[in-house]
Amino acid sequence: MIDKLIQQIVEKKNPTVLGLDPMLEYLPDTLIEKHCRNGINLETAANAIFEFNKRIIDAVHELIPAVKIQIAYYEMYGPAGLEVFKATSEYARERGMIIIGDVKRNDIGSTAKAYSSAYLGETQLKEYSAKAFDMDFITVNPYFGFDGIQPFIEDCSKFGKGIFILVRTSNSSAGEIQDLQTDQGKIYQIVARKVCQWGKGLRGKMGYSYVGAVIGATYPEQLKELRKTTDKTYFLVPGYGAQGGRVEDILGCFNEDGLGAVINASRSIICAYRRYPWNREFGSDEFDKAARKEAMKMRDEINAGMWSKGICPW
Amino acid sequence: MIDKLIQQIVEKKNPTVLGLDPMLEYLPDTLIEKHCRNGINLETAANAIFEFNKRIIDAVHELIPAVKIQIAYYEMYGPAGLEVFKATSEYARERGMIIIGDVKRNDIGSTAKAYSSAYLGETQLKEYSAKAFDMDFITVNPYFGFDGIQPFIEDCSKFGKGIFILVRTSNSSAGEIQDLQTDQGKIYQIVARKVCQWGKGLRGKMGYSYVGAVIGATYPEQLKELRKTTDKTYFLVPGYGAQGGRVEDILGCFNEDGLGAVINASRSIICAYRRYPWNREFGSDEFDKAARKEAMKMRDEINAGMWSKGICPW
Repeated sequence: MIDKLIQQIVEKKNPTVLGLDPMLEYLPDTLIEKHCRNGINLETAANAIFEFNKRIIDAVHELIPAVKIQIAYYEMYGPAGLEVFKATSEYARERGMIIIGDVKRNDIGSTAKAYSSAYLGETQLKEYSAKAFDMDFITVNPYFGFDGIQPFIEDCSKFGKGIFILVRTSNSSAGEIQDLQTDQGKIYQIVARKVCQWGKGLRGKMGYSYVGAVIGATYPEQLKELRKTTDKTYFLVPGYGAQGGRVEDILGCFNEDGLGAVINASRSIICAYRRYPWNREFGSDEFDKAARKEAMKMRDEINAGMWSKGICPW
Repeated sequence: MIDKLIQQIVEKKNPTVLGLDPMLEYLPDTLIEKHCRNGINLETAANAIFEFNKRIIDAVHELIPAVKIQIAYYEMYGPAGLEVFKATSEYARERGMIIIGDVKRNDIGSTAKAYSSAYLGETQLKEYSAKAFDMDFITVNPYFGFDGIQPFIEDCSKFGKGIFILVRTSNSSAGEIQDLQTDQGKIYQIVARKVCQWGKGLRGKMGYSYVGAVIGATYPEQLKELRKTTDKTYFLVPGYGAQGGRVEDILGCFNEDGLGAVINASRSIICAYRRYPWNREFGSDEFDKAARKEAMKMRDEINAGMWSKGICPW
């Protein structure tokens, strides 16, 4: 799956990911009214979000290689929200996008196996099997050590999927645990080494591992440092745009081949219609057009940054 | 909510939790055939699991104060599984049990807020609000630091709920991250101190905090040590029974008042009908009766252990 992701990135000349983390408050009122005119509840709200997602996907799928769907924003609507999570992933896949389930699952081995069946592998139903959510990649938390990672890695190998393990998160208190200093280095450095070790035997054609790392755009020094120590680990880099990460912050996450990282932006794209300059050009019903323009701007900014460092591969 | 949990424990004279982690392979064939005779798929399998859960709850709800529902075993069945997760929690609540959602969620602040709305608080729907999954407690992973914990704590306070933060997990590779030594102690010790600090302002009538800790029965030395350093933190102790934790391993998790911990057992109770001596007494269709017997045995064993140490409060 890492090869498919790289292929999409190269074809679309765009190392970015669309983060679909839609809060109801991000939707234009007209869209909410359309779906909730007979009453607003968890189901009708989830339906409004599905239409929002579909229109954003329609607008950007030719530009952006992958979509990262943050499951928290669907669990908020109960089972109806999970229906929309699943339907959104199917809709994006039909339009050629790679699906990253941002689920940050973690548990002991037997339970991690159940999670892996849910998102990467298959659920055994006596002599049959079925796919519950069928992501291409998911995010995973490392606090349980290898036991809690192994079932996901096995399914990566068996079903051609991938994972991104949390190394350095993008939030301001990330360092509270992740920066603790041990005699083998800081926690995030130790986790990064483990990610390399766990993913060593699982490499795609381009040499990159199926086992990647999540490293926040909001920590440019750590990004640069980790890039040097983990050259065949793909990075999923959240925190660009609304969370504060800028072009100059993320250039250090690419290798000299211009590969090695995908940059996620969520709110800056899906809420683009509310912000200057797009709010002058588009009405709130044209949120999809604004998202497309912002996605092009982000792509061009990152590509220009990569050119300036001589690492743009297209 | 911690007071309600303690009240239930004292009333039922039982500091245990029923873990509902049902794999399809745990169910008797007759139950699967009943629900899946027109074809087995994610929906019919989830329905069979719901009947299994209901019969177990019916059999033990007068004995056991709380149910811990491990969401991975429901996500495996897609949205239909999440319907059963929700329905199981409602069914157990109607029968007087406290609901612990074992979800181990974790993310940056804004996303943690979405998770907290899904499981502890409410989802805002313009001027209305609704509850998506409505747990009493959930489990949470600490890797993000305080940012990722704060929204849950706020909802504990606002909605009278509780959380258990992962400190020392029950799996064999737990120590890989959690035992790393820093100059402030090992990682699990630092997380334990943070749990105390984060939960300081949120105490119930009995003095225990709404912010508890997950500490595995499979690490008796750490249990004893953490009990001494965190006396007003309630412990959720997984790993009893099928995972290897024994009575003598978990006695150190109680305070002198006999409170301070709930012991979870999952497979040893829900699969009791398959094992000696219950497999001689009960047929596979009587899995609920076997679960009840095993639940009584577990309660009595733990109470006898507590008596022997002079810490049994009932």
